[in-house]
Amino acid sequence: MKERIRIAIVGYGNIGRAVDLAVGQAPDMELGAIFTRRDPSTIAPIDTATKIYPIAEVEQFVSYIDVAILCGGSATDLPVQGPRFAALFNIVDSYDTHVKIPEYFASVNEPARKAGKTAVISTGWDPGLFSLLRVIEEAVLPQGEAYTFWGPGVSQGHSDAIRRVKGVKDGRQYTVPIESAVEEVRTGSQPHFTTREKHLRDCYVVAEDGADLKQIETDITTMPNYFADYDTKVTFVTQEEMDTTHAEMPHGGFVMRTGVTSEGRNHMIEFGLKLDSNPEFTGSVLVSYARAAYRLNREGQIGAKTVFDIGASYLSSRTPEELRAKML
Amino acid sequence: MKERIRIAIVGYGNIGRAVDLAVGQAPDMELGAIFTRRDPSTIAPIDTATKIYPIAEVEQFVSYIDVAILCGGSATDLPVQGPRFAALFNIVDSYDTHVKIPEYFASVNEPARKAGKTAVISTGWDPGLFSLLRVIEEAVLPQGEAYTFWGPGVSQGHSDAIRRVKGVKDGRQYTVPIESAVEEVRTGSQPHFTTREKHLRDCYVVAEDGADLKQIETDITTMPNYFADYDTKVTFVTQEEMDTTHAEMPHGGFVMRTGVTSEGRNHMIEFGLKLDSNPEFTGSVLVSYARAAYRLNREGQIGAKTVFDIGASYLSSRTPEELRAKML
Repeated sequence: MKERIRIAIVGYGNIGRAVDLAVGQAPDMELGAIFTRRDPSTIAPIDTATKIYPIAEVEQFVSYIDVAILCGGSATDLPVQGPRFAALFNIVDSYDTHVKIPEYFASVNEPARKAGKTAVISTGWDPGLFSLLRVIEEAVLPQGEAYTFWGPGVSQGHSDAIRRVKGVKDGRQYTVPIESAVEEVRTGSQPHFTTREKHLRDCYVVAEDGADLKQIETDITTMPNYFADYDTKVTFVTQEEMDTTHAEMPHGGFVMRTGVTSEGRNHMIEFGLKLDSNPEFTGSVLVSYARAAYRLNREGQIGAKTVFDIGASYLSSRTPEELRAKML
Repeated sequence: MKERIRIAIVGYGNIGRAVDLAVGQAPDMELGAIFTRRDPSTIAPIDTATKIYPIAEVEQFVSYIDVAILCGGSATDLPVQGPRFAALFNIVDSYDTHVKIPEYFASVNEPARKAGKTAVISTGWDPGLFSLLRVIEEAVLPQGEAYTFWGPGVSQGHSDAIRRVKGVKDGRQYTVPIESAVEEVRTGSQPHFTTREKHLRDCYVVAEDGADLKQIETDITTMPNYFADYDTKVTFVTQEEMDTTHAEMPHGGFVMRTGVTSEGRNHMIEFGLKLDSNPEFTGSVLVSYARAAYRLNREGQIGAKTVFDIGASYLSSRTPEELRAKML
């Protein structure tokens, strides 16, 4: 039997659990451990036999774990965990604060290089597969226009913003791409859109008893950065409705490009995702890049990497020979 | 000013001309030469100053050309030219005889390795981008079903088959994906289709004077391998109609995958192309992989490669730093 890639999950929230599921689907991997900041006895992994340790003990597992998948958030967890874990393990993460990526890349690259480890940062689907497709599409159609549409799907950031409004008990926001805009791009024309013309924001709100609903609606729809530049719809629902109808985290979107190769000859490329569960798909992408991190490291390709640096064969559990024979 | 990648075009048919156009769009490339088996004086490149040489003289240009893009056909040109050119230059080609790819890979790999050259074979869009997406989609959704649809577009092979039918003066065949099948995949279900349920074949035929039209239609629709397994429509047109309405070579299609990450949670990935000109888009893809061949060779990554082996950053004229800052 072939050796399996031994994975560690660092942080067992939505993404951590999704990675647990995805490792279970991978024929060439096994889950070696879960590391958590919480009391390990409060964690319920898919396989109850999975070993769970306090995050403080990771140093003991340096020779045992092949790749650590960091499942924490970009705001506070990863800026600390990324550099720390990259000095100990091959790592994969989904760091998604777009403007700080170059800085984060550097902060992980240095310890990874020193330790001879490979660190794949900012993967998932955006950043991740969407970024990859943006680059491929631009490379093959250099004279053109790029479009990214998100949704329909739950935006965590916008849902959090709603929940901070006075009188709001619970809130959920769906980002919805405007179908007529997507269709216009599909015609091969190169339209220019305002922010309002590309997406609308559909909000579901549970109000506190006696709250001023009109005021809540105004506070949401006029909120700068989050809602003011969009057509925003606010619907008040009961907590029960929220818990039953809005419990899932679907998402998706499109990365499109139209370009021209000669007078009158237009081309359209479209990459689309329709996801029932944003965290589960993200977890699945993280796991395929964990395979890449492991293999790159075995080849001596150390330091920080992004989706742009990694050939597709590194993601696949098939051999290069099989890929050429069956998938090309 | 930065050094430009110097490209040679080998064979100046539809694809050769398309590569000429695409090199013109690349900020970091220049066309060094065209090599042809025809009389060079009969070739009309886009820039009339382009140097054109008999293919027999290529050896003289070994130190002058960075990447040779082989634009010949897979049936007879590439099996000879691939190994020969890979011993002299970094090369890129669009070898597309799927079943013989492993054999062709080996035949190019050996001379390329011996010469310290890099050879990117079987690129374009299928094989090429479609293959790449098949692998990425499978890697991130291992438990699922894959679907490739082609068209609407002109199939050269099927058009040639029509032209070999008795009484046919000219013929053009469009492969058309059946929209209801594509839509069924988009729902996230995992349908199984027969050949007939995925594509239909739409034929336009110019008959010779006095030919038996009924017999031509029967000969086409019952032709094994090409048409018998499909719903095939035959429309007779005049040569003038053929030359005006059916002169372009549009194509496209979809690479789709639906998969499941946990009970009841389905995901759908779709990659689609809608191309006004099959050769021009193919030429544009070949040129982006020529950039990759050049860079891989500078890094010492020699031998035969496919789209599966090459990170997207190698295709882009942007720097890795710029990609991370702007495209991730």
